[in-house]
Order: sequence, then structure tokens, then C-alpha cells
Amino acid sequence: MKISLLLIGKNNEKYISDGMDIYSNRLARYCGFEVITVPDIKNTRNMPIEEQKYREGQKIVELIGKEDCCVLLDERGVQYRTVEFAEWMRKQMVFSSKRILFVVGGPYGFSEEVYQRADFKISLSKLTFPHQLVRLLFMEQLYRIFTVIKGEPYHHE
Amino acid sequence: MKISLLLIGKNNEKYISDGMDIYSNRLARYCGFEVITVPDIKNTRNMPIEEQKYREGQKIVELIGKEDCCVLLDERGVQYRTVEFAEWMRKQMVFSSKRILFVVGGPYGFSEEVYQRADFKISLSKLTFPHQLVRLLFMEQLYRIFTVIKGEPYHHE
Repeated sequence: MKISLLLIGKNNEKYISDGMDIYSNRLARYCGFEVITVPDIKNTRNMPIEEQKYREGQKIVELIGKEDCCVLLDERGVQYRTVEFAEWMRKQMVFSSKRILFVVGGPYGFSEEVYQRADFKISLSKLTFPHQLVRLLFMEQLYRIFTVIKGEPYHHE
Repeated sequence: MKISLLLIGKNNEKYISDGMDIYSNRLARYCGFEVITVPDIKNTRNMPIEEQKYREGQKIVELIGKEDCCVLLDERGVQYRTVEFAEWMRKQMVFSSKRILFVVGGPYGFSEEVYQRADFKISLSKLTFPHQLVRLLFMEQLYRIFTVIKGEPYHHE
């Protein structure tokens, strides 16, 4: 099973990349996991937010393969408990495509184009967190989900 | 306004304490913020989970002052959007007690004693996250809330 995490903009916080390294190593035991970083749009100072979102969206859509199962991490998405998210993932792994591609948007969210291409929308929280912290949260949760699927003693209900 | 974050167990992940340092510094501009760490219960290897929770609970309750507004960060709590959480906080700051004490439990959650003392329960997510990561999440969110209250350009709706 291949799982990719698609991100807008480089992370520039060391504590975030340190945490991501820890979960990358742990995830390697369960799946082929990779992080794909889309460079930030340049010269945005005088660019309207909608145009910035649109351009980011174009870059995202280009990177989604035809057979990918594309999942947006988005506040408009379904909220799961951890065991429900694990059950959802287990089903995707049995019935779905070759690659599951999770996408974290930029600070202004996703363009309409990206919403139209998405297969699923999942929300990690009703609260807003910086997209750099969302990366870390998501990777920990993905690791947690795999330990639930495998019945390993990490997650407590 | 004084805000305390009460935690069970030392953090031993460097990336978490690095992140917490960043938000501690930012929070210092808005409130008197401190982290209080309750030491882990010792010799838990053969201790039933309920006893471990009970003992942790006793230590927590001892540290809650009579006039504190005690808020558990708990999956059974209310879920807010960031602006709603900010509105809740603004009200507490106007009408409530001298100190707001937020409490993050251990891996098995809170004892009944702690639930009985609590004034509010707030949930950061339906998903379960490690309590070490919850500290970081909460501190970022508290910082975000203050920027919303002050009308500063950090949070985007």
C-alpha cells in the first residue's frame, strides 16, 4: 500500500520536521509512505487570496494521478474517531486504488478545482491549526491507525 | 489574566518541548501563562488502569485552587470552532475567576473525581492524539485565540 501526503509550502519550523522524521520512520514499517511538497506560490504580496488559492489548486491537481484515491484534510470534511478512521482506512486498503493521496492545503484552504477532484474530505478537528502542525498531527494519526488495524498496543480506547 | 496548563507526566520528546517553547514565548505577550507538570505515577507495571487513573486524579485535584476555573481537555467535551473557542475565552476573561486552569490527562483519561471538580470540558478533536502532542496543539490554539480576541492577522476564517 502506498500512501502520500501532499503539502503546500516548505516547512520552516525545525520542531515540526523533527517530529515528522520520527513518524516517517515509524510509518515505514506499515506502508510505503512519502511526503510530496508543492512549492509556495511566489510573489503573493499583492495577489488576491482567490488567485493564490487557484494557483495552488492547479499545482495540486497536476500531481494527483488518475487512479489515486484523493483525500483532502479539510475542515468541511467528515470527523471520525480514531477507530472509525482506522476502519475507513482498512476498507480503502482492501477495495480501493493503488495510492491514497492525502492533501493538506495552504492557509486559505483549497480551490474549487481541488474540491471537485477529491474523492473524500476528512476533518481532523473543528479547530483551525497551522498547516505545518497539521502535517505532524496527520502523521501521528496515520501511525496510530496502523497500530489499531494491526491490533498493536499503542492506542487506548 | 493567568492561564495554567496542568499536565500529567514529563514530556520526553525534544521536538514537543521545542515547539512548546516557541508558543510559551508568544503567549507571554497576552497572558500570564505557565505549565505545571504533575510527575507520573511510579511503579505502574502491575497496577490496574483504574488505580493509576485514580492516583493521577488525586494529584490533579490537589493542585486545583478553590477559585480556579478548571477546564478539562477531554474527548467527552464540547467541540468549538476557533472563533467560538475565542468567544468562550473572552467571556471567561470578563466574568470568571482569577485563573483558568486547563488540564490534559494521561493516556487513560481522567478519574471520576477530576470530572466532578471540573467546570468545563472542551474537546480539541474527536480523534485521539498522544497527550504530549495535545500540549503543543493546545498552546498553539491558545495563542491563536488571543490573536482572534485582539483582532491580529494570524487566524484566517
